[in-house]
Amino acid sequence: MGQTITEKIFSEHVGREVHAGEIIRCNIDMVIGNDITTPISIRAFEESGKEKLANPDGFAIVLDHFIPAKDIASANQAKISRDFAMKHNLKNFFDEKDMGIEHALLPEKGLVLPGDVIIGADSHTCTHGALGAFSTGMGSTDISFGMITGGNWFKVPESIKVVFNGKPSEFVTGKDLILEVIRILGVDGALYKTLEFTGTTIPHLTMDDRFSLCNMAIEAGAKNGIVAYDEVTKEFLDSRDSLRAEPKIHYSDEDAIYSQVIEIDVENLEPVIAYPFLPSNGHSVTQAVSDEIRVDQVFIGSCTNGRLSDFEVAAKLLEGKKVARHVRLILTPGTQKILREATKLGYIDTLVDAGAVVSNPTCGACLGGYMGILGDNEVCISTTNRNFVGRMGSRSSKIYLANSAVAAASAISGYITDPNSL
Amino acid sequence: MGQTITEKIFSEHVGREVHAGEIIRCNIDMVIGNDITTPISIRAFEESGKEKLANPDGFAIVLDHFIPAKDIASANQAKISRDFAMKHNLKNFFDEKDMGIEHALLPEKGLVLPGDVIIGADSHTCTHGALGAFSTGMGSTDISFGMITGGNWFKVPESIKVVFNGKPSEFVTGKDLILEVIRILGVDGALYKTLEFTGTTIPHLTMDDRFSLCNMAIEAGAKNGIVAYDEVTKEFLDSRDSLRAEPKIHYSDEDAIYSQVIEIDVENLEPVIAYPFLPSNGHSVTQAVSDEIRVDQVFIGSCTNGRLSDFEVAAKLLEGKKVARHVRLILTPGTQKILREATKLGYIDTLVDAGAVVSNPTCGACLGGYMGILGDNEVCISTTNRNFVGRMGSRSSKIYLANSAVAAASAISGYITDPNSL
Repeated sequence: MGQTITEKIFSEHVGREVHAGEIIRCNIDMVIGNDITTPISIRAFEESGKEKLANPDGFAIVLDHFIPAKDIASANQAKISRDFAMKHNLKNFFDEKDMGIEHALLPEKGLVLPGDVIIGADSHTCTHGALGAFSTGMGSTDISFGMITGGNWFKVPESIKVVFNGKPSEFVTGKDLILEVIRILGVDGALYKTLEFTGTTIPHLTMDDRFSLCNMAIEAGAKNGIVAYDEVTKEFLDSRDSLRAEPKIHYSDEDAIYSQVIEIDVENLEPVIAYPFLPSNGHSVTQAVSDEIRVDQVFIGSCTNGRLSDFEVAAKLLEGKKVARHVRLILTPGTQKILREATKLGYIDTLVDAGAVVSNPTCGACLGGYMGILGDNEVCISTTNRNFVGRMGSRSSKIYLANSAVAAASAISGYITDPNSL
Repeated sequence: MGQTITEKIFSEHVGREVHAGEIIRCNIDMVIGNDITTPISIRAFEESGKEKLANPDGFAIVLDHFIPAKDIASANQAKISRDFAMKHNLKNFFDEKDMGIEHALLPEKGLVLPGDVIIGADSHTCTHGALGAFSTGMGSTDISFGMITGGNWFKVPESIKVVFNGKPSEFVTGKDLILEVIRILGVDGALYKTLEFTGTTIPHLTMDDRFSLCNMAIEAGAKNGIVAYDEVTKEFLDSRDSLRAEPKIHYSDEDAIYSQVIEIDVENLEPVIAYPFLPSNGHSVTQAVSDEIRVDQVFIGSCTNGRLSDFEVAAKLLEGKKVARHVRLILTPGTQKILREATKLGYIDTLVDAGAVVSNPTCGACLGGYMGILGDNEVCISTTNRNFVGRMGSRSSKIYLANSAVAAASAISGYITDPNSL
């Protein structure tokens, strides 16, 4: 009986062939916590009476949401993780040193790999599926179970096969592909299922595109998103300073069973804008332009779109131009490495000359944390992943989700703009 | 009857010779507001019924304390200033575009000049006295009076002459000089008086030193701090892209009258650390080292010490070294220009390699705003200007004020450290 890539990853981990629907106990390769969720996991871990982590090198804490501390509460919260990391002499502890957003930092460090089973107490843990891993978000107490036992229980998910056909045009990115998928499926269309991304478009997608694509699988309710290993994955892994382990490569069988197959004509796809207040509320950029949507803030960043290619396209579009007087343009890099590369390549100078401000790496404004919160009735075009009511600030603010090219183009005019029109 | 430099500035503005104690109405060259204080000034301005500012080009709004917005309240607060700036088409409005701390940004832009009378709704407006200007902090309604009339009432202050003797040793800076002055005078020793800084040390002080020196005049209760124009001032002004007006140069007469003269032997001065909870609680670095003071956070930034020389000395001391595991080192540049120059000179790479995080320009952590707030019982060595109870966060946290060399050296060991010992 044919298997999907997700079924194969679990089969390899449990040492026998498993299929969708089975409940299994499975070892985990990497358990991830952040400054918001880890304190709860630590409390549960400590209540267990265990002295040591089951797999200390397979546990990463990344303080990324609220540090450098935005207030006293976040300082006290971060301290719990700091103290735990010192006590257990954690190798994979990241705070103000070598700062980054967990889902940008861990792939960069070679800590998440093809064939891995990864859990993280953050809903966008599904990002790492871009490397051909099974990676999913769980609650903080599930994370503590992973810390204590080194494993967890899973129901092997059914898979939806998403077939992307054709080469995307210049300003169509992984972000647009996933916004289109969510537009089709709705925000609960893939509940507890795998979104397996395939098709002739895949070889055209950079790793940055693939991370954006898998990052928002959760926004359709999916358990995980996944792209199989290929030359693009290999190149990414080869350029890491080191890898945590040897990658394990799996591919879906031709006769694998899918609960659903959806096909998307990428060749004719325009950039997609998700209107308030759901990621599934997708419209073409042509529609958005005709709707004449004025913006107060443009935000480029987050685990969805805070990577080097996002800075590259923004710098390219803003070179020699100015941000509209009424607009603030805020860019937040995913990691220090991204910021440093963007600086070396001249992108940061170009962006600051245009009138942007570039922050340190952080989750920042995406979740309404800090560094670009929206006031009453303000409108933001954002490269982030969620446009729920009040997500980035005031309940009367509005968020339009888009790719970084659309966001940058909109900063110049102050209205949602098609980058192809510049 | 001889005059001090401060008396001469006022005399030139009112067109007759004035002396300490006189109450005068005086035109103002530059009125300054920030994101916290300007909304109150704007309300009072609008209640006055005036349609236009008395001197639009002599009014600057700098959003620096809480932007990019840290929360909904700060976003709404900033919006008041933004809307006013758009409505009045303000030339000197600074927000996320070309961001900076007001007291670092305005001198950099050539907007504050020798001989000026400057008021700002921020206590550290006294910083600009480093250029040979009269510059003082006032309340928001005083600022609105300046916006409406272009002038304000002043009592010409008496002056305390501070005579610094000798060349400072390598790691003794303007910051140490002012901490020593405050240690001697106390936090109310110069109430409503001018601190006029003179002596053989002055030619050895860079403009960065002088800005630090004048910045903390308020911490001794002074109305203003001032350093007379010299070659160092000239060089600084010559390197500006443009100047708002022609500088007016004044010097105190030899027979000027001072209420007090204090002399400080700079040649034998060590770096000074102000212990919690007052800037006047100064101790030598030797004392601090013997007290074995462990720190959780090192903060280098603010209108006191967020300039290029602060990044330079920090990078020099941290080159090839690592920040102690238990310490977070946060650097916040005063302006985009400072950040860009520090980047070009390789300081930022060195600092990030050592384990620091560098933020965008902002007042940030100094006032307990964001970007490095202290949790319960945490200890911080900070290059900022105030170490009051709870200033940077929790009421149980502690702040030690120091120069940037001492701060950087302390980041390496995690204890307050004499940079001379490295």
